[in-house]
Amino acid sequence: MSSNLVLRFRAADRPGIVARVASLVASLGGDIRAAEVFGDPDTGGFFCRMELGSPIGRDGLTAELQPIASELGLEWDVKDLAQKMRVLIAVSKFGHCLVDLIHKQEIGQLPIEIVGVVSNHEAMRKTVEWHGLRYHHLPMSDGKEAQEARFLQIIRETDTELTVLARYMQILSDSFSVALDGRCINIHHSFLPSFKGAKPYHQAHARGVKIIGATAHFVTADLDEGPIIEQDVRRVSHAITAAEMVAIGREIEASVLSRAVRWHAEHRIFPNGNKTVVL
Amino acid sequence: MSSNLVLRFRAADRPGIVARVASLVASLGGDIRAAEVFGDPDTGGFFCRMELGSPIGRDGLTAELQPIASELGLEWDVKDLAQKMRVLIAVSKFGHCLVDLIHKQEIGQLPIEIVGVVSNHEAMRKTVEWHGLRYHHLPMSDGKEAQEARFLQIIRETDTELTVLARYMQILSDSFSVALDGRCINIHHSFLPSFKGAKPYHQAHARGVKIIGATAHFVTADLDEGPIIEQDVRRVSHAITAAEMVAIGREIEASVLSRAVRWHAEHRIFPNGNKTVVL
Amino acid sequence: MSSNLVLRFRAADRPGIVARVASLVASLGGDIRAAEVFGDPDTGGFFCRMELGSPIGRDGLTAELQPIASELGLEWDVKDLAQKMRVLIAVSKFGHCLVDLIHKQEIGQLPIEIVGVVSNHEAMRKTVEWHGLRYHHLPMSDGKEAQEARFLQIIRETDTELTVLARYMQILSDSFSVALDGRCINIHHSFLPSFKGAKPYHQAHARGVKIIGATAHFVTADLDEGPIIEQDVRRVSHAITAAEMVAIGREIEASVLSRAVRWHAEHRIFPNGNKTVVL
Amino acid sequence: MSSNLVLRFRAADRPGIVARVASLVASLGGDIRAAEVFGDPDTGGFFCRMELGSPIGRDGLTAELQPIASELGLEWDVKDLAQKMRVLIAVSKFGHCLVDLIHKQEIGQLPIEIVGVVSNHEAMRKTVEWHGLRYHHLPMSDGKEAQEARFLQIIRETDTELTVLARYMQILSDSFSVALDGRCINIHHSFLPSFKGAKPYHQAHARGVKIIGATAHFVTADLDEGPIIEQDVRRVSHAITAAEMVAIGREIEASVLSRAVRWHAEHRIFPNGNKTVVL
Repeated sequence: MSSNLVLRFRAADRPGIVARVASLVASLGGDIRAAEVFGDPDTGGFFCRMELGSPIGRDGLTAELQPIASELGLEWDVKDLAQKMRVLIAVSKFGHCLVDLIHKQEIGQLPIEIVGVVSNHEAMRKTVEWHGLRYHHLPMSDGKEAQEARFLQIIRETDTELTVLARYMQILSDSFSVALDGRCINIHHSFLPSFKGAKPYHQAHARGVKIIGATAHFVTADLDEGPIIEQDVRRVSHAITAAEMVAIGREIEASVLSRAVRWHAEHRIFPNGNKTVVL
Repeated sequence: MSSNLVLRFRAADRPGIVARVASLVASLGGDIRAAEVFGDPDTGGFFCRMELGSPIGRDGLTAELQPIASELGLEWDVKDLAQKMRVLIAVSKFGHCLVDLIHKQEIGQLPIEIVGVVSNHEAMRKTVEWHGLRYHHLPMSDGKEAQEARFLQIIRETDTELTVLARYMQILSDSFSVALDGRCINIHHSFLPSFKGAKPYHQAHARGVKIIGATAHFVTADLDEGPIIEQDVRRVSHAITAAEMVAIGREIEASVLSRAVRWHAEHRIFPNGNKTVVL
Repeated sequence: MSSNLVLRFRAADRPGIVARVASLVASLGGDIRAAEVFGDPDTGGFFCRMELGSPIGRDGLTAELQPIASELGLEWDVKDLAQKMRVLIAVSKFGHCLVDLIHKQEIGQLPIEIVGVVSNHEAMRKTVEWHGLRYHHLPMSDGKEAQEARFLQIIRETDTELTVLARYMQILSDSFSVALDGRCINIHHSFLPSFKGAKPYHQAHARGVKIIGATAHFVTADLDEGPIIEQDVRRVSHAITAAEMVAIGREIEASVLSRAVRWHAEHRIFPNGNKTVVL
Repeated sequence: MSSNLVLRFRAADRPGIVARVASLVASLGGDIRAAEVFGDPDTGGFFCRMELGSPIGRDGLTAELQPIASELGLEWDVKDLAQKMRVLIAVSKFGHCLVDLIHKQEIGQLPIEIVGVVSNHEAMRKTVEWHGLRYHHLPMSDGKEAQEARFLQIIRETDTELTVLARYMQILSDSFSVALDGRCINIHHSFLPSFKGAKPYHQAHARGVKIIGATAHFVTADLDEGPIIEQDVRRVSHAITAAEMVAIGREIEASVLSRAVRWHAEHRIFPNGNKTVVL
């Protein structure tokens, strides 16, 4: 088997789709090693992800599948797991998610290639450059429109497939969000939908919750309202100050964000309206 | 040692309070077996709970402490752990929290005496009476005012110390909430402050969260806004329907509510503005 | 669609199995609504579970699949989700898992029919009979061999598909374990493989662990060594006594056991050597 | 108030200890801001930790308390929270715990001063030196005795208060362990007491557990048997390979170890026989 591929598709549910696709894969010598199929009873959406060993590569399989995919009305793609996803990271002053992503990438835990780091501050330059990565300082002083235009240009120039907002403390314009639809993941430092907006740990502290959390979600034009990919939580008590919540939260944020990035890089996440399916 | 007591107090923080109280306890032959002290840096509130072995009983210790408590401006009480808290449970049609509380009381896991069960439905009568408990059917058809008056009368007649809303699906009047201030615990079937109000699991499902939860809180006039006592959560996935969330949530609700009831019966919970301190 | 079926199989991994099976299902008008496929890279075992809407029922689909299953060397079956699994529960003196299973069955959370309760004690008779279930007292005073013979006879007479040891504090003979291979689930009150054998919470307390747990596993001749189905845990502290661990543990045990029973009743669990695959 | 101190002591339980100590503190103008007292019913041991605002500093308070401490037979000390604990980190080839500790120290989340890093390999030198820390390469090729002698010498020369084995893959000699008794924390990459010794994730994978974990414990002469300080866990499934468990486990290890180090640096941990009390 020359290639380790992921074939995934979504379709309107109708009988026979899996059979048709699996049969074609088999006829081409492909071997399904793992698969998951989910039919959403609420929307009728039908989602499938298959891991294949395949004697023909990504492009070949794509060409072969094209006719059947058209006939069945699939929204689909084939990915080669050997080809690492190109990721651009955006950060402001807090480096905990950035450091975690870089470390996990370096030790082989994340199937990504970090193509650079964008920041509205200089704070992380030294760290980023020491790891041999390119640092793009995009100050807000240039104006939001110019800054975002430059940001989008970097995304294009670097062939970025996924932009990760790793505590990038800027509100994006609608047009920027739309341009990156489904290709931009943010980490919000609360257990959404609780505590949207600014200073969520301080909000959580003021409300007296007994558990805090973090949420990785796709960026959409609605701030903190995009489809949720992953969440996690940690217990706190009355004795934990807001500042301590911030510290505890950093671990949750880094962990949740890195899982969302890994799942995306493994081609596991399907947007499903305002929700996600993770297969 | 004749008695196993809990002495607890709150005060404005000022030096020497613990020393004064501990010294008086020691002079009376009391033995501190466990204690926790928490000074809230935000409010200056100072909270203390001590478990004592004491040669004199609750009433004796109360009398001895009265002068020093007045002098120091303590809000305080002494409780005898041998005296089980008198609990009235309110329920509508769903019995999972009720059954859990009764079972835990019967096997000695909750230091409470259940003085009866109130319901706006007849659904749980058979279960309750089989366990030898009194069932009070208070239908809403009598009108909310009359119904709540009867509810309060039962609380008084049974010397109820704590009223537990164990999935009692009625919105309480302000006056009822105020009358039970600090003596009424509700279980809300969401991870507050997310998903207040009706059908929280359906709200959670619609939002696509990856973790659901439940919250035990003191009842106040603001619906689902009272001080949070305890919360817990469980992971869900895209494949979990709203109905399955309801089922998974039942376990969380019963577990969280029984912990809140136990802590209250062990005299561990201090309201602290819109928050709680649990010692 | 007349039937809601589960088709599951395991096989030695070789290309084309999913395609063959899915194609036959499709040719019979069946509709795959959810599916999961797992190939174990360590053993080469290949596991598949499909939920189908099918115009032909369980027996019909079984007959149609027989030739292909033989050809492909599948270990397989078809189940009708409308047909509740017949479950016999065994218990000694502690009723928390029993009460939890009965309650969840009664409110429709477990797709099982409880065909009776077996016990070496009389302690749970009243509870069981109040719920309208048959209670079989099988005292150990008759001798282990006779007692187990009677137990097996009840399993046969009631057409029991799954025997659940819900804190049944008897060590089973090898022959009994072998007779129920893959059809008997036990709850062990520790996070296996830690603290096998008697009084695990007391072992955990003596060791000073900070987290306790419970484990549901298939019963095999090796005590507490069978394939693990599900585990869960809860944090404890130095201040938690062994008796309190027992109390906390009851909730974990009931929760873990009910999940294992539900998964088995939904035909999700595949033994895989000394491990399980849960699809 | 000039100083933010921690006063902690353990004693044989007898009435009046808290009163005596708190009274002396009060008479010196000290202000108890938080405190916790735990009497172990199994051993009769009595543990107390107080956070104090104090007009006199650490040395002054120590001198004043000496007579009463002697009289009461306390094992005790006073610590100044402004004085960061001096920590030496030992590591082999895996840097995830090291990187995490350094990052948390740098952003002010750990009240420690890292006095250097010891390693039997060169792998981490570049990282450590980039952060401005001293790297001591102590190869095992010198022989275990000489290597440990040099290690102990570095501990002495750097006034190390806590040695952290952050995935230091060497078995320590008994004499080394004894020399660091209560001043050396190890992270073991399993949920102890399960899976002691080498390759615990591979052991966990082979056993088919559904939850994996990590354990921080004091080092004693008995390998992986020292008093447990903290543990945490993460769910896994049949689909997680041993290599993926290693990756998931890294996060748990770093998180658990950093909590143990923080608690130690905040003077919260009391060894209690083969267990710990964390106040």
